[in-house]
Amino acid sequence: MQALPGFRDFLPDACAARNYIFARWREVARRYCFVEWDGPLLEPTDLYKKKSGAEIIDQLFKFTDKAEREVAMRPELTPTFARVIAAHEREFKKPLKWFSIGQFFRYEKQQRGRLREHFQLNCDIVGEAAPAADIELLALCIDLLRVFGFTEKDFVVRISDREFWTDFLREKDVPPDRWDEVLQVIDKFGRESREKTIEKLGKLANPVLKVLSEGGKSEKLDRLVDGLRDRGLAEFADIDVRIVRGLAYYTGIVFEVFDRAGNLRAIAGGGRYDNLIGLLSNGAISMPAVGFAVGDVVLGELINETPHARGALQRATADDRKIDIYIVIAKEERRADALAQIQQLRDRGYRVDYPLAPMKVARQFQAAEEARAALALLYGDEWPQVKVKNMATGDQRLVPQDRLLAHLQAQPSLSS
Amino acid sequence: MQALPGFRDFLPDACAARNYIFARWREVARRYCFVEWDGPLLEPTDLYKKKSGAEIIDQLFKFTDKAEREVAMRPELTPTFARVIAAHEREFKKPLKWFSIGQFFRYEKQQRGRLREHFQLNCDIVGEAAPAADIELLALCIDLLRVFGFTEKDFVVRISDREFWTDFLREKDVPPDRWDEVLQVIDKFGRESREKTIEKLGKLANPVLKVLSEGGKSEKLDRLVDGLRDRGLAEFADIDVRIVRGLAYYTGIVFEVFDRAGNLRAIAGGGRYDNLIGLLSNGAISMPAVGFAVGDVVLGELINETPHARGALQRATADDRKIDIYIVIAKEERRADALAQIQQLRDRGYRVDYPLAPMKVARQFQAAEEARAALALLYGDEWPQVKVKNMATGDQRLVPQDRLLAHLQAQPSLSS
Repeated sequence: MQALPGFRDFLPDACAARNYIFARWREVARRYCFVEWDGPLLEPTDLYKKKSGAEIIDQLFKFTDKAEREVAMRPELTPTFARVIAAHEREFKKPLKWFSIGQFFRYEKQQRGRLREHFQLNCDIVGEAAPAADIELLALCIDLLRVFGFTEKDFVVRISDREFWTDFLREKDVPPDRWDEVLQVIDKFGRESREKTIEKLGKLANPVLKVLSEGGKSEKLDRLVDGLRDRGLAEFADIDVRIVRGLAYYTGIVFEVFDRAGNLRAIAGGGRYDNLIGLLSNGAISMPAVGFAVGDVVLGELINETPHARGALQRATADDRKIDIYIVIAKEERRADALAQIQQLRDRGYRVDYPLAPMKVARQFQAAEEARAALALLYGDEWPQVKVKNMATGDQRLVPQDRLLAHLQAQPSLSS
Repeated sequence: MQALPGFRDFLPDACAARNYIFARWREVARRYCFVEWDGPLLEPTDLYKKKSGAEIIDQLFKFTDKAEREVAMRPELTPTFARVIAAHEREFKKPLKWFSIGQFFRYEKQQRGRLREHFQLNCDIVGEAAPAADIELLALCIDLLRVFGFTEKDFVVRISDREFWTDFLREKDVPPDRWDEVLQVIDKFGRESREKTIEKLGKLANPVLKVLSEGGKSEKLDRLVDGLRDRGLAEFADIDVRIVRGLAYYTGIVFEVFDRAGNLRAIAGGGRYDNLIGLLSNGAISMPAVGFAVGDVVLGELINETPHARGALQRATADDRKIDIYIVIAKEERRADALAQIQQLRDRGYRVDYPLAPMKVARQFQAAEEARAALALLYGDEWPQVKVKNMATGDQRLVPQDRLLAHLQAQPSLSS
């Protein structure tokens, strides 16, 4: 028996890497004073039908529950966020800055950087329509990658604007009910054949392809990059109107983050969705919003491919696994005394391990070394004194057991 | 639109309480030198059919995926754990001490302390058959509750032994293929009517009811309690042979944790399952194991009902939400300067907030207070000096902007 295709077992090393990523995400989101929340893993399928777009609906892990409800394992967080905000926005001052770390599910063809589950950090600002909110969010997105040691040589945020395209389509007299369809074709540009793109665009093919190859001018996007320049982050951003994003609910700026080498899928993506909260409250409230998500899978690949980022992760996870004290039980008669002490040490917050079964002293010291214990305490013939060995220097000294806690408190290398 | 019945939205306060519980769990598990891992949320339904027992199978959120696989959202972790250990045990030294924090799903009637999803901490020791492992695990379970401020007056671990009952049934000449059935009846004792129990037990009714009312003697269980006494934890444990646990895979000691007041469902439960790993490896390996899980829902209720535990949670979560610095932009001409500084401060790890849109100075100071900022920095007429206000004392001083970072480094109340 093994895990389902596209689902991961997180053995200790993989789990430590995941925890490292989550801890850095949480740390940076908190620097930006974002507040953490979470939603359910299972939601009514209707929540996604309303506005996520056809591609996501096709990929849902969906089923009918015992009470005949149509339910789906969440493929993304934004519809849940909009639902929660629509229900609770009065309880909170605006603008809201919220983040969430959780797992998401899509039944897709497996390929590099794409499993059937992944973890995402979602960050959203609600209640501020001004570009200042877009810039704050873009800066957060950039810092969430810089924290792993990446520089402007490693990744780039490509920023675009759905309004750039809707203005363009309005100018070309394309009726609004065709806009979504055209945006979908632009989103797939480069992934579908040129012939298919031209066929789908019809008489729009020439002007659209011209913009896609030559780029577009947008004062609004220039101002966003100026805002990043104020923060010293302009080198991390490019204007790129080829980005439109697949999700149907975006209304303004959209952006995606890619590795500069161009080897990987998008690392992060997001944009402005000023109508979704209103839609999910059936028009009861209207609330501008902008958000993005960054996933753990592609980010993990980029960390793995970038030596200094990989080194930082490995050092942090190895350090985090160190223990403080290994208790060597040299005489089984001393086991009860040792266990009483172990309880006291753990109560004070020390990480303490010991052999569950009788074991040769040399093997116990070996276990202490493998666990990277700072100290080994030996319980044996010296009782009621305990032999304290500093595992780094090899220094040993005898300490009376009733003075042991005071002695350890003076040790700077311990975690408590 | 709202969340599905039995599923929770975690708004910021609830999410902070959840994070507090997870952080304490992780901290204590690490003191015991347990190593974190995790498994998939979705598993083949067969994994649970093998050995979880009929009650869980009935309650599965299960469905058929796009490739016609029978899959289920995980209702518990132990079968996944046994699967992972069966596949990977050679990569790790025994005994293994592993823990995991994750979400689990059961389609049950909603009632107090029982939703359709909850979070669990699972802790398991693999590869050690001696009672020393059972005692280590029981001590961990007790400390995982003590860490919230609970004492022996608040909760009790009721310890029992399936072998006590299988020895009893062997003595009564009950054939082994009926043992599971009898254990299920004992598990339901007190929840089902006495008549139904007597009817189901048949000629075993009298001797079984005698043991259930008078208690049973077990040297093995006495030795476990002695082991807890060595650690000063005996007051947290009672021997209670009425506990047998519903899950089918237990083979030795079993235990459940209850609030002393008897108001709540079980807070935690577990036991020894020496055959499950062998079963999931089709007999390729045999590996003794003992483990337990503690859930967030009942624990959260007990915290909420216990004033000192509730106070500790509230203080910790309020402190965790504090920010370091609120930037007051008194003149909009200074916004770009302020933003450059904000970026530098956040890069150094400070939690820094500021108004996204222009706002009156008095309202900005109010926002600084509401965010419990340690300092407010005012960017206005004094530029290139910055007015630094200590929000606790009200002290203000002007600091040249190029000396601001050095000035802040000397402030002990900041998080970085």
